[in-house]
Amino acid sequence: MAPVKKGILQRLDAGEVVIGDGGFVFALEKRGYVKAGPWTPEAAAEHPEAVRQLHREFLRAGANVMQTFTFYASDDKLENRGNKLTYTGVQVNEAACDLARQVANEGDALVAGGVSQCPSYLSCKSEKDVKAIFKKQLDVFVKKNVDFLIAEYYEHVEEAVWAVEVLKETGKPVAASLCIGPEGDMHGVLPGECAVRLVKAGAQIVGVNCHFDPMTCVETVKMMKEGVEKAGLKAHYMVQPLAFHTPDCGCQGFIDLPEFPFGLEPRILTRWDMHKYAREAYNVGIRFIGGCCGFEPYHIRALAEELSAERGTLPAASEKHGSWGNGLEMHTKPWVRARARRAYWENLKPASGRPLCPSMSAPDKWGITKGHAELMQQKEATTKEQQQQVFDRSKKH
Amino acid sequence: MAPVKKGILQRLDAGEVVIGDGGFVFALEKRGYVKAGPWTPEAAAEHPEAVRQLHREFLRAGANVMQTFTFYASDDKLENRGNKLTYTGVQVNEAACDLARQVANEGDALVAGGVSQCPSYLSCKSEKDVKAIFKKQLDVFVKKNVDFLIAEYYEHVEEAVWAVEVLKETGKPVAASLCIGPEGDMHGVLPGECAVRLVKAGAQIVGVNCHFDPMTCVETVKMMKEGVEKAGLKAHYMVQPLAFHTPDCGCQGFIDLPEFPFGLEPRILTRWDMHKYAREAYNVGIRFIGGCCGFEPYHIRALAEELSAERGTLPAASEKHGSWGNGLEMHTKPWVRARARRAYWENLKPASGRPLCPSMSAPDKWGITKGHAELMQQKEATTKEQQQQVFDRSKKH
Amino acid sequence: MAPVKKGILQRLDAGEVVIGDGGFVFALEKRGYVKAGPWTPEAAAEHPEAVRQLHREFLRAGANVMQTFTFYASDDKLENRGNKLTYTGVQVNEAACDLARQVANEGDALVAGGVSQCPSYLSCKSEKDVKAIFKKQLDVFVKKNVDFLIAEYYEHVEEAVWAVEVLKETGKPVAASLCIGPEGDMHGVLPGECAVRLVKAGAQIVGVNCHFDPMTCVETVKMMKEGVEKAGLKAHYMVQPLAFHTPDCGCQGFIDLPEFPFGLEPRILTRWDMHKYAREAYNVGIRFIGGCCGFEPYHIRALAEELSAERGTLPAASEKHGSWGNGLEMHTKPWVRARARRAYWENLKPASGRPLCPSMSAPDKWGITKGHAELMQQKEATTKEQQQQVFDRSKKH
Amino acid sequence: MAPVKKGILQRLDAGEVVIGDGGFVFALEKRGYVKAGPWTPEAAAEHPEAVRQLHREFLRAGANVMQTFTFYASDDKLENRGNKLTYTGVQVNEAACDLARQVANEGDALVAGGVSQCPSYLSCKSEKDVKAIFKKQLDVFVKKNVDFLIAEYYEHVEEAVWAVEVLKETGKPVAASLCIGPEGDMHGVLPGECAVRLVKAGAQIVGVNCHFDPMTCVETVKMMKEGVEKAGLKAHYMVQPLAFHTPDCGCQGFIDLPEFPFGLEPRILTRWDMHKYAREAYNVGIRFIGGCCGFEPYHIRALAEELSAERGTLPAASEKHGSWGNGLEMHTKPWVRARARRAYWENLKPASGRPLCPSMSAPDKWGITKGHAELMQQKEATTKEQQQQVFDRSKKH
Repeated sequence: MAPVKKGILQRLDAGEVVIGDGGFVFALEKRGYVKAGPWTPEAAAEHPEAVRQLHREFLRAGANVMQTFTFYASDDKLENRGNKLTYTGVQVNEAACDLARQVANEGDALVAGGVSQCPSYLSCKSEKDVKAIFKKQLDVFVKKNVDFLIAEYYEHVEEAVWAVEVLKETGKPVAASLCIGPEGDMHGVLPGECAVRLVKAGAQIVGVNCHFDPMTCVETVKMMKEGVEKAGLKAHYMVQPLAFHTPDCGCQGFIDLPEFPFGLEPRILTRWDMHKYAREAYNVGIRFIGGCCGFEPYHIRALAEELSAERGTLPAASEKHGSWGNGLEMHTKPWVRARARRAYWENLKPASGRPLCPSMSAPDKWGITKGHAELMQQKEATTKEQQQQVFDRSKKH
Repeated sequence: MAPVKKGILQRLDAGEVVIGDGGFVFALEKRGYVKAGPWTPEAAAEHPEAVRQLHREFLRAGANVMQTFTFYASDDKLENRGNKLTYTGVQVNEAACDLARQVANEGDALVAGGVSQCPSYLSCKSEKDVKAIFKKQLDVFVKKNVDFLIAEYYEHVEEAVWAVEVLKETGKPVAASLCIGPEGDMHGVLPGECAVRLVKAGAQIVGVNCHFDPMTCVETVKMMKEGVEKAGLKAHYMVQPLAFHTPDCGCQGFIDLPEFPFGLEPRILTRWDMHKYAREAYNVGIRFIGGCCGFEPYHIRALAEELSAERGTLPAASEKHGSWGNGLEMHTKPWVRARARRAYWENLKPASGRPLCPSMSAPDKWGITKGHAELMQQKEATTKEQQQQVFDRSKKH
Repeated sequence: MAPVKKGILQRLDAGEVVIGDGGFVFALEKRGYVKAGPWTPEAAAEHPEAVRQLHREFLRAGANVMQTFTFYASDDKLENRGNKLTYTGVQVNEAACDLARQVANEGDALVAGGVSQCPSYLSCKSEKDVKAIFKKQLDVFVKKNVDFLIAEYYEHVEEAVWAVEVLKETGKPVAASLCIGPEGDMHGVLPGECAVRLVKAGAQIVGVNCHFDPMTCVETVKMMKEGVEKAGLKAHYMVQPLAFHTPDCGCQGFIDLPEFPFGLEPRILTRWDMHKYAREAYNVGIRFIGGCCGFEPYHIRALAEELSAERGTLPAASEKHGSWGNGLEMHTKPWVRARARRAYWENLKPASGRPLCPSMSAPDKWGITKGHAELMQQKEATTKEQQQQVFDRSKKH
Repeated sequence: MAPVKKGILQRLDAGEVVIGDGGFVFALEKRGYVKAGPWTPEAAAEHPEAVRQLHREFLRAGANVMQTFTFYASDDKLENRGNKLTYTGVQVNEAACDLARQVANEGDALVAGGVSQCPSYLSCKSEKDVKAIFKKQLDVFVKKNVDFLIAEYYEHVEEAVWAVEVLKETGKPVAASLCIGPEGDMHGVLPGECAVRLVKAGAQIVGVNCHFDPMTCVETVKMMKEGVEKAGLKAHYMVQPLAFHTPDCGCQGFIDLPEFPFGLEPRILTRWDMHKYAREAYNVGIRFIGGCCGFEPYHIRALAEELSAERGTLPAASEKHGSWGNGLEMHTKPWVRARARRAYWENLKPASGRPLCPSMSAPDKWGITKGHAELMQQKEATTKEQQQQVFDRSKKH
């Protein structure tokens, strides 16, 4: 039986750094258990050993939070995904809770039950209907006694507020995380105001996840923090960004980049990029620091290693990782040994090996039309418009 | 009990495509179980569930070969790795065989026992000493009754020939794979000649793995094939390249690139790059097609999907993958739905999101000297020389 | 004798497009007549045939304004330049006026006498002293009877206001052009406010030149226009940007880019980039459209060609230029002939041929210190800071 | 009257470095006097002051050779250019000779009369007909008493041999320069063999010009030199490359690059690239070192500065150029002053400022077909093939 652990709020109130886990849908898509497009988590029931293994890797990398693999696991989303599933929504959610709990019990981690944006909101269902959707997942979380709750991946602060209101009924700690950037939610509500609304709705932890690269997300949470403090309120802050460089994306994030979701490889952050992110997030005052799409276990380990002094510990997986590349010290080639130092990796500008590819893209905006020719014409026209937009943005520098 | 399967030579003789698995050391390094630098496979004994899971993912992705996770598992290498290990070489090798066999039995896959280049050769031990090293691993493979043997990752054809001679004693089919490019082995023996020597030593399958990107490896195997045919010999061919773009590397491959091993992310191949590789390898006449460092399960799946008509089957993991991105067809944004087609992904030139980084690097050549200042001076000087070399190479275009 | 021409204000009041000339110091530096560093225009006296030829090329390209080559020709700057000159400031200024007048008389162009920022202002001389500097150049312009005056290349609006006040005394039309971007002058006075001050000081034409790429400059002038209109004032607008792409520069423009001034080649705009710039400037309401550093005659011709319908004429140099590349129609290779069309050139993303170079730089900020080692350390540290700044900026996208 | 100068062979026999001039058609196209497409030199008659000025700039930059601006000035080419010209071929050729002579007399330069490949050869006219074309230009050169002759810009060694045979009849020294790369002429005759044929035909100087970047051209001339020496012959060597980086072009050079000729700006070499080229050419044993398309006067000056010790002199234009950027030493900003040193510029990797553009292109190969749709389909298909070719080439690294 697992010992009694400090809760999420106890940790944050004490000023501890809490390391989050990485994104399950992207990692498991690469492992063959999640379908890109629907992005639903039925693997929790179908292939529990694969999900369990990923939990274990994040735990080993230093994560203090095991999020239940229940992203897009609301009934309306599961039904909407094109293919009929073998398992019901309740079965998927229950399986996800069991896996998270099992692995959490193997180390110093808490279980967080998560609800995310649902199709019912976008199709203009009523507040009552939308809340009923959240409630159904929540019943599982209560039954399975998760340690705290996260409403995450909301593009509209209104929907997130509704989610927080539902989650609050349980009496458990509630975190709320939007997938927005510095320009705010899809209705233009700025990050500071979004955060204020979420705190007022009862969230004790607020922040952002997904859609943007680490530095953009940290900047957005910083704006949230400033908003909350200006309003005379108090909160803890969390950030769980992409592990992709997205300097070129627009207000809706990486989904509009032409590389989404099957050509993002050249944008993957190195472990050294992660060190910079962890330090920046810490300096801004964020204490719940994790990852979302693109994060692999070694990315989470990099966060834990960067903040090892602050946390007073190195993660288990560091037994297989030399600090700042020092595992190379015994290499037979002297020029490879010369890479076994911090300054080398901090200053490296890694090449893409793709001389026919650009370094930035223009986000997509064009739609499907009647035929291919028309589409192509539209694309050609839009390409110019897009170039203009990138040009326009560059003017602000 | 598993049914009797067709052996590797039966399959290749019948003209079947055999899909290999991906590289374990890189994949498990990212998952936290292998240390970069030593790159040894003690995880087979220490963390069997992690190794087993990776085997399962490759099997599910379509692999017909489960290579025992015994890379660098010779006694002289294990002792040489800096840290003392909890397990003996025999224990590691036995555990690796058990894991490969267990998962192979879950599907249509064979177990291949692998030996790789050993420090004893480089430190000029005698042929007898080096062969004794190989023999020790081989004893485990015989005891565990693997289906066939692979001598892989040899930079010197002489050492590979010795390995083949040892492996041949078992009577099992033997494959031999060098980590060389079109310029040949470290003594300048060209690929065609290397292949001839390996075939004459008894290898039934010859090819290359690691060190270079797919197209370079396919080209190298093509040169091997031409050499073998010109010599009036017969063989089967295999290729297991990197999953990194390396147009800029020199004759010793990706190890000399400044990004090796912790900054290679921007070079990772997309699944669409893998389609091109699989087709090219097939067209050249290679039938044992797999991957090495950098390959994740979805890369192997892409090989299996590209060659699904030739193989008459789709891999299990394709249940979670829409062909050519068609999982995006139900996306809410029309411009994302417009990506659900082959021409889109085939023609995409993915951006790196790294405007401060170049697209190619100059390979490293400089060594460590007495002090940091001297090192830096040397580096500055060498940088110019390297530029020259890249310039020189570009002249050949 | 030249016919009486319409003055600059008559043209602008009538809504005509006035094409400016290009930058003399950069063009003549490449031709061997101006020294980078001092950037002074003594060539007007030393090598009049070279300066005259450049005037002629801009005239032929469609320019309606011949700016006297008197940039940095104030006495305090000429004395300050390191090397003693053979000619006095008065001689240089007079020669420049004569050359501009001679060529202007060969076509439909006006002569504009220009004064630019002077070292006396930066070394905190009094308003009276600074104005005396401007007055000295102005005396030459009055004697030589230039058609109008331009105070250009001011980083501080206060100095520009002083210059305008001096120039106004002549009764000639006065234009005022700052070398600022959207973030305003070096004291943080925003473009709108800068423009208001200049108009109130008596400038009839306001705008920006140099330091930033075309789109950034157009955006800045747009902000000026909004400021002037909001203040209920009236003015004409001018823009004379760099011919270099500078999406990565900071508030002080291209001087802080590491490539300034001897490595800017990869940033040079194509003629097609110039078409986009001319159209954008026109659409924003700017009617005096020219160029600064980096502009060669063919760049000016591209402006005149893009706006040929609005101006009702093609420049003389278009006799040697097929519209949108149609001079290629008779090429022997069909794939080169296929480039003889607008869509081809508008959509081309030209490669740099430099795979070892990045697409963007981080602006420089570090200074010289006691020794080289210290400098290098400082640089290393600053590089990280700079990366951060670029990262920070990218967050705003 | 000009003093008697040492002839071209006297200089080369004495081991002197002879600096060539730059390319007139590209430089004058940017200045508005040459039409891209036909590329004919009628400006010699139409706008002599513009041509004379460019000669002067190259002379001032250190050039010892004034090539008559008679590129493509054969009658068959002039008649073929689409637009009727005001001047006859004889008039153009005579004017060009007069201009070259006038400026050569102003300094230490010789006049070289040039003939280049002609349409008659490509349209399969007989040897006699083709030679008659060359003869007609030659008559002008003899009448105008040029100092030596250059047969340049030949893709077919056969045509170049014919030209040399005609030029030899004058008794003047003859140089022969092909526009080929290391893969040889359009019939696959390798550089070494080409050079041997030209020397046997009577050329005293052999080399290459145009079509490829400096390092590629130097490499090609090196192959010529090896061929000549291996054949037991003797010759002097010349090189006059592009001022564009073209690592990605195929065997027919920069014409097949998609950027040719109106999007080559990002490829322009810096002056520092020119230092490397001059040194490399010198080290290989080439003594007639100049430039072709893309070379501006400052590029030629850089050659003369790099080889100033060997030549014992700096060019006149160096009065306006601080060695290795030392004109920046008095800059007000310390970080700009810090650029006033050789190591800075030698190691700079200049950014393109174009994040949406790649660093390399795939050469064009597709032709025009019946309609636009078909063209586009063809292009799409070819694009893949081209990618493959680039991929293929990259394999050789």
